[in-house]
Amino acid sequence: MNSDYSKIIENAYKLTKPLKDKGKLATYIPELANVNPEKFGVHLTKIDGTCFGLGDNLERFSIQSIAKVLSLTLAVKFLGEKIWTRIDVEPSGTKFDSLLLLETNNGIPRNPFVNSGAIVICDILISHLENAREEFLEFVRDISDIPNLTYSDKIADSEKATGYRNVALCNFIKSLGNIENEPEEVLDFYFDMCSLELNCKELSNAFSFLANGGKKLRDNKQIITTSQAKRINALMLTCGFYDESGEFAFEVGLPGKSGVGGGIVALYPNNFTIAVWSPRLNPNGNSFKGMKLLETVTTYSEMSIF
Amino acid sequence: MNSDYSKIIENAYKLTKPLKDKGKLATYIPELANVNPEKFGVHLTKIDGTCFGLGDNLERFSIQSIAKVLSLTLAVKFLGEKIWTRIDVEPSGTKFDSLLLLETNNGIPRNPFVNSGAIVICDILISHLENAREEFLEFVRDISDIPNLTYSDKIADSEKATGYRNVALCNFIKSLGNIENEPEEVLDFYFDMCSLELNCKELSNAFSFLANGGKKLRDNKQIITTSQAKRINALMLTCGFYDESGEFAFEVGLPGKSGVGGGIVALYPNNFTIAVWSPRLNPNGNSFKGMKLLETVTTYSEMSIF
Amino acid sequence: MNSDYSKIIENAYKLTKPLKDKGKLATYIPELANVNPEKFGVHLTKIDGTCFGLGDNLERFSIQSIAKVLSLTLAVKFLGEKIWTRIDVEPSGTKFDSLLLLETNNGIPRNPFVNSGAIVICDILISHLENAREEFLEFVRDISDIPNLTYSDKIADSEKATGYRNVALCNFIKSLGNIENEPEEVLDFYFDMCSLELNCKELSNAFSFLANGGKKLRDNKQIITTSQAKRINALMLTCGFYDESGEFAFEVGLPGKSGVGGGIVALYPNNFTIAVWSPRLNPNGNSFKGMKLLETVTTYSEMSIF
Amino acid sequence: MNSDYSKIIENAYKLTKPLKDKGKLATYIPELANVNPEKFGVHLTKIDGTCFGLGDNLERFSIQSIAKVLSLTLAVKFLGEKIWTRIDVEPSGTKFDSLLLLETNNGIPRNPFVNSGAIVICDILISHLENAREEFLEFVRDISDIPNLTYSDKIADSEKATGYRNVALCNFIKSLGNIENEPEEVLDFYFDMCSLELNCKELSNAFSFLANGGKKLRDNKQIITTSQAKRINALMLTCGFYDESGEFAFEVGLPGKSGVGGGIVALYPNNFTIAVWSPRLNPNGNSFKGMKLLETVTTYSEMSIF
Repeated sequence: MNSDYSKIIENAYKLTKPLKDKGKLATYIPELANVNPEKFGVHLTKIDGTCFGLGDNLERFSIQSIAKVLSLTLAVKFLGEKIWTRIDVEPSGTKFDSLLLLETNNGIPRNPFVNSGAIVICDILISHLENAREEFLEFVRDISDIPNLTYSDKIADSEKATGYRNVALCNFIKSLGNIENEPEEVLDFYFDMCSLELNCKELSNAFSFLANGGKKLRDNKQIITTSQAKRINALMLTCGFYDESGEFAFEVGLPGKSGVGGGIVALYPNNFTIAVWSPRLNPNGNSFKGMKLLETVTTYSEMSIF
Repeated sequence: MNSDYSKIIENAYKLTKPLKDKGKLATYIPELANVNPEKFGVHLTKIDGTCFGLGDNLERFSIQSIAKVLSLTLAVKFLGEKIWTRIDVEPSGTKFDSLLLLETNNGIPRNPFVNSGAIVICDILISHLENAREEFLEFVRDISDIPNLTYSDKIADSEKATGYRNVALCNFIKSLGNIENEPEEVLDFYFDMCSLELNCKELSNAFSFLANGGKKLRDNKQIITTSQAKRINALMLTCGFYDESGEFAFEVGLPGKSGVGGGIVALYPNNFTIAVWSPRLNPNGNSFKGMKLLETVTTYSEMSIF
Repeated sequence: MNSDYSKIIENAYKLTKPLKDKGKLATYIPELANVNPEKFGVHLTKIDGTCFGLGDNLERFSIQSIAKVLSLTLAVKFLGEKIWTRIDVEPSGTKFDSLLLLETNNGIPRNPFVNSGAIVICDILISHLENAREEFLEFVRDISDIPNLTYSDKIADSEKATGYRNVALCNFIKSLGNIENEPEEVLDFYFDMCSLELNCKELSNAFSFLANGGKKLRDNKQIITTSQAKRINALMLTCGFYDESGEFAFEVGLPGKSGVGGGIVALYPNNFTIAVWSPRLNPNGNSFKGMKLLETVTTYSEMSIF
Repeated sequence: MNSDYSKIIENAYKLTKPLKDKGKLATYIPELANVNPEKFGVHLTKIDGTCFGLGDNLERFSIQSIAKVLSLTLAVKFLGEKIWTRIDVEPSGTKFDSLLLLETNNGIPRNPFVNSGAIVICDILISHLENAREEFLEFVRDISDIPNLTYSDKIADSEKATGYRNVALCNFIKSLGNIENEPEEVLDFYFDMCSLELNCKELSNAFSFLANGGKKLRDNKQIITTSQAKRINALMLTCGFYDESGEFAFEVGLPGKSGVGGGIVALYPNNFTIAVWSPRLNPNGNSFKGMKLLETVTTYSEMSIF
């Protein structure tokens, strides 16, 4: 493996930046449509603690679905394997399956990263924690070392006002018996969770425990067990990019997770985490330039898990 | 990583062998139902050439769908990236999707390891090779170093006589325009391909080029490029076990491929390949004890790619 | 045709009453579960104005989905053919299709009698009437000649508190762009509409304009045109009984509509309307004894439209 | 009802003939593509024996799926109600459901008029008759009073050579256990059955027993019971036009059956049968002008069952 990471990143950044990018901003959350579409940043954190960033890597953005990995981590940390009676661990197949598969699977979502699965994780956290909203925030503050991190009310409110499809999903799962709390409460927490804002540097740092056997880089504190970290990484690889999960494994070859805010985080176990941000999305809802940059990085460096 | 492989395998074999195994033999291919269901063998081949086997690891069995990885390799070797216009690289979601998804995707199979995808690969090989049946056999003889390897006419004929579902799939894809040759010719080759018989030792040896950057262990001959090998490994991880692909990645964490003959091959890039055989299948059509043994191996050793 | 209606009804009632009835009450609306499951009534109204009833035909019950025919009539009366750009007129196929088909059809419900279609009708009425809730009530009071008819708040509240699946449907259609008003407002009207209570006599009377070329029996007032009445009858025949619509056409051979309160109304154009009530439902959600009674009536009398 | 049938037909014919018709010929059966697309004929047969025809009503065409009503009649005649354990009587919902629904329904087709259902009927006839192919031909000769009627080998061979989708359907149902004979034999009979050629006059005559309580017009011979005739009429109304069955019931209001050869037959029980032929098809695979003519007839005459 080529270890000269900074050159690889720099090269990939240069190659990707001028690409003609036809992607559109996520418009179903009105507030996200106000972001400057030309933003582009990348940051890599090695598990030896060194790091390297380029472009808009210090500007915060809405991490959206990337937060689902963190809420899953909190659920695994506190409740362990029993959460898997309520969610499966299989890729979802197609965009259209979310509702169809829920119906045929009696309300058991295919995995914790499709919206239905992340909503069930929120329901589980509400049922088992004193104050899920606060405890989740504390948890992310802790693993990211950002003490003043907060939810973005503006983003959360924007999604609450227009998130009809998520309201549909949550009520549908409730009708099938796999939501314990009232849909409104579950959805409020879900929209809050997705409203977190971090920059690329903070994001690659926050996820580095998953590349480090479950331990925080700074103080080696064990967040979750090594086995639990491996399983979350496996889930990111098979389910982290919706319909494009197979494509990402095929082209990039790293576990990762994307969000409609244009962020992607990926990681090479025992080596590094990398976060990239570019708001224009490809037709599958993943950052167009983010995908391209990561493909370029692993094509040139052969730094993939395969 | 624990490097004392033989002890790990021995331990997993001992723990798995006495398990009560409620699985059934594959009965839809009548000839497969004649196999002794108590057979159990395992063989590991390291990329340094050392190897270790236990139980019925020297008795040949029908590798069935495991052969799909080899026909894909041949297609990739000769035709490169252009095969991906005819097949996708995404997990298929559910058992029931094969036909539904074909319809909504205009006859483009979800990946080369579902039956529809492997049938399209056979069609591609027939169109582009002089004699696909013979050239595929030569190819497997070459990578496995078994010069007298042959198709099993008994198995192939048994499946030809009863494989109505595969006849349906092939004719359906033909009606959607993604099969070039006559369905009967494509199916004959497909059933032949699946009828290959190897033992665990031969199988772990035959697949070792995928753990070795695309090169044969014995003579370092480059079968496919390193990048192509990585991509086939990624496909095995996301799509190698039908509906249970996510589960296998989650529990075992290695690229692998199963067959209804009860065989499974898995590999740890740059380290080893492992083949296991036990004919009783779990409800998802994968070897019950084979899955358990591999789970035990990676749980105890932490030898997973994640 | 046998014209001695009262004997035919009496005979069918006697044959059906003692049938062992394994059906269950609708339990998803808690308030409906309090109804006495042994209730059984039938009432026939001929278009010459004569009528005949038996059993509990003068006791009111929750007509539920039967009301969808009346809200459709109001929409057709005021808006004419333009409503068919927002709803289709095809049978829905299977129980599970409601959500799947909505997704593939861009939020256009299959017909106005599946829940999604009735919800869109409610949305249309809200958009085009000053006060849909009041005007619909006035309309039903007018065609049924029951001046003091009212919504049942108890039933409506019971469904509002637990109707998660309808909340899901309405929000899903909203997300696909085929609901104009806020889901909460649409659902409130929908639940109110379904909460109407009539007895068999009133129900057969209220529907008699559909058997009479669109004109009220009492005063020959034209409610809708003859052509519009024919089309609503056609819709009842093809779509009136969910998954069992084909079965009802096949066994009974009359246009009709059922409700989960155990009511069914059916009609023979230019001849009669008949309403029956028995709360226990068959597995398709239609009144078990109601279906049996109507089958017996048409089998003995050959009074079907075919 | 207006009884001056000939004027109504003449008027509708004149209004429909000049319509711009963008429909295409069925091209998936190559031989059908050779038909002159401008052909247009109509013929009405009253149950009093009088009849009236216009245009190309004496030129034979391939009746295709219209023959499914006749093979169903033969199955009902000889085997009675027991055929309904192998086929359902519900509309199929969508075009795409044929395969999906077969899978979820364990190989039980939705109704006898979708291809899968007609194929199962062919299998039933082969199992229960000495020589299904000959006996079916005799049966149609008998009810149509055309002693020299034969199958068209040219059409049947054309479809056998290219009917991959029907081969897929038949093998798929076989794999699910609902075909008793070998798929090849079943398909041969199916393609023969669909290759019958009649003209509009012959067709309206052949179907007149269904408008006449199951009895032939010429000699009052009972072909099937009145109740059986009513049920076949009900099935034509709910399932006779694939995805457009609801639309046909809504717009025309008569039981009927279409074929991809451009023919449609419809009937008004106890009144008349009408056959129309125009080869250009609308996007749902039904004759464009045939549908328009029948809509015009019933709109002007109000001669519908509703």
